[in-house]
Parts: sequence; structure tokens; C-alpha cells
Amino acid sequence: MSTWKDNLRTIDPYVPGEQPDLPDMIKLNTNENPYPPSPDVRKVLDAYPEAELRLYPDPNSTKLVQAIATYNKVNDNQVFVGVGSDDVLAIAFMTFFNSKKPILFPDITYSFYDVWAELFQIPYEQIPLDENFEMICSDYYKENGGVVIANPNAPTGICQGVEALEDVILHNQDVVVIIDEAYVDFSNMSARTLIDKYDNVLIVQTYSKSRSLAGMRIGHAMGNPELIAAMNDVRFSYNSYPMTRLSVEIGAAAIEDTQYFEQMRQKVIATREWTKKELTRLGFSFGDSMTNFIFATHERVPAQVIFDKLREKHIFVRHFSSPRIENYLRISIGTDEEMKTFIEETEKIISEYQ
Amino acid sequence: MSTWKDNLRTIDPYVPGEQPDLPDMIKLNTNENPYPPSPDVRKVLDAYPEAELRLYPDPNSTKLVQAIATYNKVNDNQVFVGVGSDDVLAIAFMTFFNSKKPILFPDITYSFYDVWAELFQIPYEQIPLDENFEMICSDYYKENGGVVIANPNAPTGICQGVEALEDVILHNQDVVVIIDEAYVDFSNMSARTLIDKYDNVLIVQTYSKSRSLAGMRIGHAMGNPELIAAMNDVRFSYNSYPMTRLSVEIGAAAIEDTQYFEQMRQKVIATREWTKKELTRLGFSFGDSMTNFIFATHERVPAQVIFDKLREKHIFVRHFSSPRIENYLRISIGTDEEMKTFIEETEKIISEYQ
Repeated sequence: MSTWKDNLRTIDPYVPGEQPDLPDMIKLNTNENPYPPSPDVRKVLDAYPEAELRLYPDPNSTKLVQAIATYNKVNDNQVFVGVGSDDVLAIAFMTFFNSKKPILFPDITYSFYDVWAELFQIPYEQIPLDENFEMICSDYYKENGGVVIANPNAPTGICQGVEALEDVILHNQDVVVIIDEAYVDFSNMSARTLIDKYDNVLIVQTYSKSRSLAGMRIGHAMGNPELIAAMNDVRFSYNSYPMTRLSVEIGAAAIEDTQYFEQMRQKVIATREWTKKELTRLGFSFGDSMTNFIFATHERVPAQVIFDKLREKHIFVRHFSSPRIENYLRISIGTDEEMKTFIEETEKIISEYQ
Repeated sequence: MSTWKDNLRTIDPYVPGEQPDLPDMIKLNTNENPYPPSPDVRKVLDAYPEAELRLYPDPNSTKLVQAIATYNKVNDNQVFVGVGSDDVLAIAFMTFFNSKKPILFPDITYSFYDVWAELFQIPYEQIPLDENFEMICSDYYKENGGVVIANPNAPTGICQGVEALEDVILHNQDVVVIIDEAYVDFSNMSARTLIDKYDNVLIVQTYSKSRSLAGMRIGHAMGNPELIAAMNDVRFSYNSYPMTRLSVEIGAAAIEDTQYFEQMRQKVIATREWTKKELTRLGFSFGDSMTNFIFATHERVPAQVIFDKLREKHIFVRHFSSPRIENYLRISIGTDEEMKTFIEETEKIISEYQ
């Protein structure tokens, strides 16, 4: 007899970094920002008329879309917003990748891309990065159903120049090319202007990292109005009111506070550069991270050992067991004090390791 | 030459009720609650430590899941939460309806079901309701890929007894049967206990109507732990952190304030019953609504005429142009004062119509 279980969609889900909640922990495992969001967020919470929560949100999230458009100097119809960049990327996959040909993305990259491909039954091919975790542009010249590039890449932290991205785009004019810029604010190397030149390029960004709003789930895409309209058609066929009223208000307030944003971003970058020097001193090697994390391997001590021993001290970093990167740790940038403690404890672990 | 447009997923999206924003309007078009959410929501906003918004939410929304489980007397592993019941239903469609056989739902029902079926490429068949908009159970005895029943139904407001639902479930043991209870709190006729008897039944509810939280996008499903686990696998393959931190806190606070909830629910029901009497007096007929709206047709004046003339007076109700229901209006229940104005203005329109 047939049962309902025969018709289940079964997948291996994406596994997010663990979310421990210990009072004394140092949490460097999910690339969150160590600093609070703009003080204007407090003002939004205090002033928000809670009675209005009885009403549905504006389906177009107009206030948030306008704030994003203004900041990025694009038109409102070039902006799509979603429940974090994961939601934005999932909808982009569903909207644009309906060819029978495989979509292409690097073998080492955000580990959600293959999960979405499986979920939406999109064929895909993972293109190996070179031995320095750099992209080989010519590997993307072949026929495909779409291209996805995280830049700066995760978990490697490496940033390709805009010329490299444009080379890939030029060779892929007949498919949609997604540039996932989750970490771009720590790099100053956005490919944003490419959407003015190419109608098939979609730039995706998030409020979870540089804007300190991971808890509010806000992400956006920018591209030509036809791309955005197609995504909105899919969005409105899935959920008419994706963004909460508070997400729209808080997101708009945060993006409008450009001064605070600049300060926090520079603080994280400064701490990252200090951490790089310290890690080098301890015998780590790593690519030149342009993100709010460093992806590092030690010359002598296995990553798993360092990971486990840091964990015992309630310092949480991220370790992936995938091939090619199993001897690396991904270390999010915390406050100066947190990174000092992290370096001290790591130094002890290394000196004690026989 | 092939272009990226060839691989677009193209659909006719669901069209939500318009969201006008006029200071003097009476908004009876999207079944929102006329009363504010629990006063505890204000307390959450005032007390929430905004610095924590820098952190990702708990991916399992544990606090909210536990509050829902406690209220409904089920276990935590029998509860799935999503970004409004639209998100919950979309994920249920994606998770459970992967057969080649058509899923079944009534011809007059929530107009998102066929949109999701199109989006996820699920074959479907719409089963006609009888002339009183009642379900004919035996029409659902045929082979199918799943069943979806809104109960009370929208936009008709009609509620089938639990025996009728159980009859359909008994004849559909090999597929998942979804009971969409968006309006159930205005009916006191939940099929919730059927999940204890049948492992293939999923009950879906929302916080947008009876809990006055449409603006926070919270919905949930209840079913046996295997159904819930399968939905969570799909969820975590789409978006690891669907619920904002504030949605979790506000949702939990609202569900825990059972006294306020009871009061507001009874107020809406009382106003609905008053409105029914007035509409009858004016020459309207309608089924016995068990929701926070009334789906009514007038003996003489066309629905489109009443709709347009009410609109001129900034009173917004909902009109669907679909066959069988084009001469009906769906009128959400507002405050007593709003409904009094609505009745007065409608009476004028009717008396002036030649």
C-alpha cells in the first residue's frame, strides 16, 4: 500500500553554525557583528505603535526598499527585499534557474547553494577553486544554467576583483549571474555598478553582518527591473507579506544611519587586521580576508584539535569537515577584547600541543 | 540565441487585498482584527535588549514553539512555525505534495492554493462545493496526491463539522490532508484532536486574525512528529532562520495572554452576530459565518455596485471577480462603531439603487 511518506520531499538540510547561549562564551562561529545595531533601532522599538501590528505589512516593503535604493543610488524597482539573504537567494534560485543545464558555483563556497539546488531540483556542478582558493574564470566559460559567486567568498574570505567577475559575466550573457555580496561591506569591492551594464546580473546583500541585524532577517537583491519583477512574481506566489512591520522599520532606520555604520565597519576591519598579524605570529596561514572572519590553517596543530580545545574554554569558532578545508578554522571577528582572549587561548593550545 | 528569460519561472501571483492607508478609512477588506494585540506586546517592545538583534535567532524558535505547544496541549515536536500561515502552507505543499496525482481542494476556497500548486508544479483538481458552498465529502474519495481544506472556509465563512473532515481523512489515509484553520478561533470547531488519531493530518493556524498580529507574520502547523520533522528539513533547506527575534518574543507573549485573547475573540464574535442581523434586515443573504468576516450577496443590488460605492466613502470590503462568487462581498468584522457606519452607508446605497 502506498503511504504519504512516498511523496515526501527528502533532503539533507543546510546545517547552520551552532547557537550556544552561555553567559561567558566568546561566539566567533557564525560571523555575527560584535557591535549592536544603530542606536536608532532602540528609537524605533520605543516609538512603534504596537496597535498597528494588527494590520498586515505593506506587501512591497516600500519604506525599506526606498531606503536601500537611496543608499545604493539605484531605483526602487531595482531592489528586492527578503527575510535575510537566504530567502533572497532561495527565491532567486527558484526564479532564474529553470534550465536543464547545470548551474555553476565553486566547490568551496557558501554551503547553502547545493542545498537550494537539491531542494528545487536544479542540476549543478561545483567548479574547483585553485590551490589558493582563487576562482579560475575560464572554468565558467562552458554552457550552463546560471552562475553563483559569493564575493568575498565564504568560508575562505577571499575577494575576487570586479574584473574577474566581469570576465565571467561577459562569458555568460544568456543566463543569470548571481553575485552574493554578504560580506562586501568589509571589502569595499562591490560589483554593484555591474547591474547598470548587464541586465542579467543580480547582486545580493544582507543586513546580518555589517548592519548587526542578523536577528531581524533582512536581505536584498539589486538588478535590472525585469529581474526584480520576476523575483517579486515568485515571492508573491509564495508569501504575500514576507517582511514583518518591525523588520521594515528597523531595517530602514539602520540603513539611514550611515555614520554609525561607517564607524562599526572600520572597527571590525581594524580588529581583523590586528588578528591577522597575531595569527601569523602563531604560525597560521590564511588568504587575505576581506570579510568579518578569517579562514586559517595552522602549520603544525590540526584544526580539529584547536576547535575542540577552544570549545572547552567556551570560545566557539567554526570547523567544516568537508574535503580540502578540513584543516581550516573559520574565525569570526569579535571585539578587540574577545580577539585578545581568543589569541591568548589559542597560543596556549598551540604551545601545549606535542 | 537563448537568453536568461527562457529560464524564468513565470506565474500569475496571488493578489492580496489592497492595503489602502487613508486616515479616515474603514478597512474591512483583509480580515484583520479591529483590536490591538495583547498589551504584553508593548512590554516586549519596551524591554527587548536591542543589542541582541546583532545575533541570529534561535533556528528552532524554541520559545514560540513551546508557547504554542503548551496552549494547544501538544508536544514541542508536533509544532512547526513559519512566517505567517502562508509560509507554513507553502512549505507543507513543497514537503508533502510530490506525487504525480493531483491534489484536491474546493473550487471556492483560499485563492493561494492554486498559486502554490502552480509555483511548485503540483497537479491539482478543484472540487466544486455544493450550491450552499458546502463540501461534498464523497467527492474526495478518489485517488489523489493530497487534500487541502480550509475550515472554516474562506471566503465563504462556512464551517464543516469535524465528522465531515474525519470522513475525508478516513478515505485519504495514504496522502497528507491539510486542514487550514486560519479562522478557527471564531468558530470553536478545531479539528486539532484529529492529529492524535491520524498520522497524516496537518492542522495549520495563524496569528494574523484572532491574535491581532498580521504585522508580525506568525503561523504554525501541528501534526505528528514525522510530518513536522519533514517540514523542518525542507524549512532548513530554504532558510535557516525564518523567524525574527522579535516575532518569537511577541508571538510567545501574545499566546500566553489567554485572558485578553478570549475577550477580544468574544467581542469580534458578538459584533459578527449583530452584523448578520443587520445584513439580513437589509436584504442580504449569506451562509452562517464562523469567521471574522461575512460573505454576503444582496437580493437586488449587484456586489460590484455596493463595493464601488462603499469605496467612494473610504469603506473597503473585498470583492472577487471569480465565477460563482462574483455577486458576493466579503466583509471583515471591524469594531462596533465601524460596523454601524458600514451598515448605515450600505443601507443608503441600497435605498438609492434603482
